[in-house]
Amino acid sequence: RSAEMAKLTQLIDNEVFRAYATYAVIVLLKMMLMSLITAYFRITRKAFVNPEDTAVFGKGESAKKNLRTDPDVERVRRGHLNDLENIVPFLGIGLLYALSGPELSTALLHFRIFAGARIVHTFAYLIPLPQPSRGLSWAVGYTVTILMAYRVLKTALYL
Amino acid sequence: RSAEMAKLTQLIDNEVFRAYATYAVIVLLKMMLMSLITAYFRITRKAFVNPEDTAVFGKGESAKKNLRTDPDVERVRRGHLNDLENIVPFLGIGLLYALSGPELSTALLHFRIFAGARIVHTFAYLIPLPQPSRGLSWAVGYTVTILMAYRVLKTALYL
Amino acid sequence: RSAEMAKLTQLIDNEVFRAYATYAVIVLLKMMLMSLITAYFRITRKAFVNPEDTAVFGKGESAKKNLRTDPDVERVRRGHLNDLENIVPFLGIGLLYALSGPELSTALLHFRIFAGARIVHTFAYLIPLPQPSRGLSWAVGYTVTILMAYRVLKTALYL
Repeated sequence: RSAEMAKLTQLIDNEVFRAYATYAVIVLLKMMLMSLITAYFRITRKAFVNPEDTAVFGKGESAKKNLRTDPDVERVRRGHLNDLENIVPFLGIGLLYALSGPELSTALLHFRIFAGARIVHTFAYLIPLPQPSRGLSWAVGYTVTILMAYRVLKTALYL
Repeated sequence: RSAEMAKLTQLIDNEVFRAYATYAVIVLLKMMLMSLITAYFRITRKAFVNPEDTAVFGKGESAKKNLRTDPDVERVRRGHLNDLENIVPFLGIGLLYALSGPELSTALLHFRIFAGARIVHTFAYLIPLPQPSRGLSWAVGYTVTILMAYRVLKTALYL
Repeated sequence: RSAEMAKLTQLIDNEVFRAYATYAVIVLLKMMLMSLITAYFRITRKAFVNPEDTAVFGKGESAKKNLRTDPDVERVRRGHLNDLENIVPFLGIGLLYALSGPELSTALLHFRIFAGARIVHTFAYLIPLPQPSRGLSWAVGYTVTILMAYRVLKTALYL
């Protein structure tokens, strides 16, 4: 068993793979933060979607009026969905890219720019900053993912 | 080729990795089940969103009245989206955690609690159970994912 | 370091893993395309959801009337969400399947049918084609994913 473990540990000891692991966890934690921000706005704005969530406010009309949409809640939810749409491709393509044997410095550059772009995107969406802040930060993360996908296909293509 | 295969098979032979594979597949199958439940409610409640889906009910008004939202359909869809938001982080972080060389018993504990929490969450959402059932089951899965993320960063951090 | 690299490269040199990498990147790029199609329809239909996105059209009423939903935009968004719901399970289950040591020809068959089904699904959704085109293409991709999940559990099950 320890021989197998050693082999697995070699994967996590590889510097490119460690860099991938680090930035994958960072962007996933950032995405998970959106759940907490949604919950925060739902509670402070009293804007719920499930009847059972408003039971704490009593029954009848007083609870019912908390079943509503709120612009701030919807904004965080759109940011969360945009994260899913962009971080899922990064997770899959980034993993394969890390296994395709890129230079450490090149890999770090891709991972850092992607993570940075997604963090800027979140601020641009939630504050919100005037456009094209959000559009540009989205485009940077998108482009980095395409570049990594190109490298994976060039290295691994097997149709 | 068989030498390469042997190396790959070592990964799937590792007990921690096998445990990850098992629970990752379980939560993904659970998530996929939401599609079937949505389809079931759409058909039994006659609540569709695409005009081409109602063609079986004839043309004109008789079909058009089936283009509507239904509370049960929307509830399953919210459960499905919540699965995506929480199972995607588990897939990515759990894989890296499994490769970070944790104790088998510790890893099993994390995977089992996460999978159990997501199954309880689905029942709490669909029945629905009174709060805080759904909130608590969500928080348990969320916390387990954060704990695994901490372990990955402690083992692999490479900024 | 080069010895570790060699081991990693063995993973990407394995033909089944290369096939997985190729088709995973293809379906992820296809999913990412949905973002561009959404942006295209939002701009040509002038149908935005964030006030800051309409600032280019001036202020006041002239910009405000572009804050609206459009059937074509909503259709692409539904296709995008359906991609997320189905491609996430493929990414996770397909990776574990590729590591479970399947025959190359069997693995290729699964990956090709899944990718083909999702591409047909997108055309069926966006044109749109009459049902059951979209339903069938969805079911084919779903079934292939279930078959791979069965193989992973048979090979790796460790509860």
